[in-house]
Amino acid sequence: MSRVRVGVNGYGTIGKRVAWAVMKQPDMELVGVVKTKPSWEALSAIARGIRLYVPEGKEELFESTGIKIAGTLQDLIQSVDVIVDATPAGIGAMYAGRYKEVGVKAVFQGGEKESVADVSFNALYTYETALGKASVRVVSCNTTGMLRVLYAFRKAGDIRSVRVTIVRRGADLKEVKKGPIEGLLLKPAKPPSHHADDVRSVAGHDLDIITYSIVAPTTLAHMHVMFVRFNGSVNREDVIRALEETPRVTLLRASLAYSTAEVRELARDFGRCGDIYEVVVWPESLWVRGDEAGIAYMVHQEAIVVPENIDAIRAVTGVVEDGTLSIRLTDESLGIGRWLP
Amino acid sequence: MSRVRVGVNGYGTIGKRVAWAVMKQPDMELVGVVKTKPSWEALSAIARGIRLYVPEGKEELFESTGIKIAGTLQDLIQSVDVIVDATPAGIGAMYAGRYKEVGVKAVFQGGEKESVADVSFNALYTYETALGKASVRVVSCNTTGMLRVLYAFRKAGDIRSVRVTIVRRGADLKEVKKGPIEGLLLKPAKPPSHHADDVRSVAGHDLDIITYSIVAPTTLAHMHVMFVRFNGSVNREDVIRALEETPRVTLLRASLAYSTAEVRELARDFGRCGDIYEVVVWPESLWVRGDEAGIAYMVHQEAIVVPENIDAIRAVTGVVEDGTLSIRLTDESLGIGRWLP
Repeated sequence: MSRVRVGVNGYGTIGKRVAWAVMKQPDMELVGVVKTKPSWEALSAIARGIRLYVPEGKEELFESTGIKIAGTLQDLIQSVDVIVDATPAGIGAMYAGRYKEVGVKAVFQGGEKESVADVSFNALYTYETALGKASVRVVSCNTTGMLRVLYAFRKAGDIRSVRVTIVRRGADLKEVKKGPIEGLLLKPAKPPSHHADDVRSVAGHDLDIITYSIVAPTTLAHMHVMFVRFNGSVNREDVIRALEETPRVTLLRASLAYSTAEVRELARDFGRCGDIYEVVVWPESLWVRGDEAGIAYMVHQEAIVVPENIDAIRAVTGVVEDGTLSIRLTDESLGIGRWLP
Repeated sequence: MSRVRVGVNGYGTIGKRVAWAVMKQPDMELVGVVKTKPSWEALSAIARGIRLYVPEGKEELFESTGIKIAGTLQDLIQSVDVIVDATPAGIGAMYAGRYKEVGVKAVFQGGEKESVADVSFNALYTYETALGKASVRVVSCNTTGMLRVLYAFRKAGDIRSVRVTIVRRGADLKEVKKGPIEGLLLKPAKPPSHHADDVRSVAGHDLDIITYSIVAPTTLAHMHVMFVRFNGSVNREDVIRALEETPRVTLLRASLAYSTAEVRELARDFGRCGDIYEVVVWPESLWVRGDEAGIAYMVHQEAIVVPENIDAIRAVTGVVEDGTLSIRLTDESLGIGRWLP
């Protein structure tokens, strides 16, 4: 079987991690990545032996700084089977027409609107729907975290309503111009935040979900508190078992680490180079009574969507028809699910 | 009518603000405050003309730094009608026996256990119960905020259950040894946090309330997201009206300021010297559908319990028998309810 040729447009927070993950897949080949500025991230791509492509007109900017480029964005999209668009939110929509023209499959990110792609993607829910489609949109980090937890809750009972408070990291580490460095922001002030619609775009538009979102001065991870009501009672053991059995959900005892800070450092100590692809759920936080449950978990915003992008590549190209198999391949290649204490 | 003689044991975050508020009450006299260390706060008390008392054995420590003291803790509690105990959490319980022995009425803070006092206090709920009692406990900042919002919700409908996510400030500004400065902490990991029991201690032990608590790296204020279910439908207008009519609840349009940071600065600009005695509710955040509602609001941890302490002094001494009247007196003296845009 020939390997799927993959290009990544955008080598920032998500793009670079997807590129690195692609390089670890036996059934994929990273042809190159597109970078718009000759930044330290461009240099790090070169250092990793990744071919750099640039948008048309940027050739000279790169060459004047001594960075060798392999070609333009057009060159890249013409020589790959799939382009992963990891450009800043909203920019993907500007490129969508170009990808279509060339006939390259496209994987967009959650910063784009639902309408940018044929399918909103989470490997647990919409792998089969995405099979062979021209384009998919991998939903954003918070949405991905919620979807995985809800997948487990759905196994444990028939969900009636979902009420979530999302405490969002204000910025990623390298986003030095972004805030806040103090204070809590109610953003948006009017619920639901966009995450509710985003969850529905994958889990089904009939899901009753309301989300509030608070931005906090932290860079490390998001934390959610989710309250779920079921039609009928659920029991604690069923929920725990469902969480344990759900791919990319990791249970971590709060007695070991109860903060996003400790969990990120723990991830480094356990060989993760700081990236956490799983949603990390604290079992102690699970509260179950009658037809209700509550739970708290954390979402590493920089990493959680990376395995979803890998599966999305397999889905749109159809090289693996079974979502469960793709998830297993991806998780084995990235060491997901067997590292936490 | 002779004025109520008040002493404040502890001149820290809460104690100093209660002392300043006592000085503004026409029916109260601040006899003095107790300080254990000759810190800058002790100097600021002197600068404001407040008599300093010290625990027995600390006289020399203060006099050696040139700070004139008026006497010992024992001297103070023997010359007042009410002592407001604003010592660190858990220390109040150690003093409780001493207050009792002298026969002085005592007002404790929410850091103490429910059992420290005869009544857990919030002026909207338990003023009449507290009348003439030997001691009351003013519940903590987060609890006070929740109680006021719930008071309004109760007017709008028959509450069935309350589910709250509390995002707590990590430390007050001057608590320079306290963290975190990065990360989000799930604390406690096992719900409910103590706030649920604390709300019940005032609103009634039959209230179905579950609270989760997340600590964030901020000093300015707490923020809550509260989901309420009612027996029967409620409507938005009734909830808004009830919030508007509830003392010490201030509605602030998020279009003006949607973060704790802006609201704290806005408070300074509007002459509050930074202190916000009200729970600040964003009307845009109110979500109502059928028998459910959700809302977000902020609690200034350093200030919200101050007016409650003033009312508690009136309640235990019985100088004002009507809680509504005491609230009005307190609020007029502190400028509560007529400053926000």
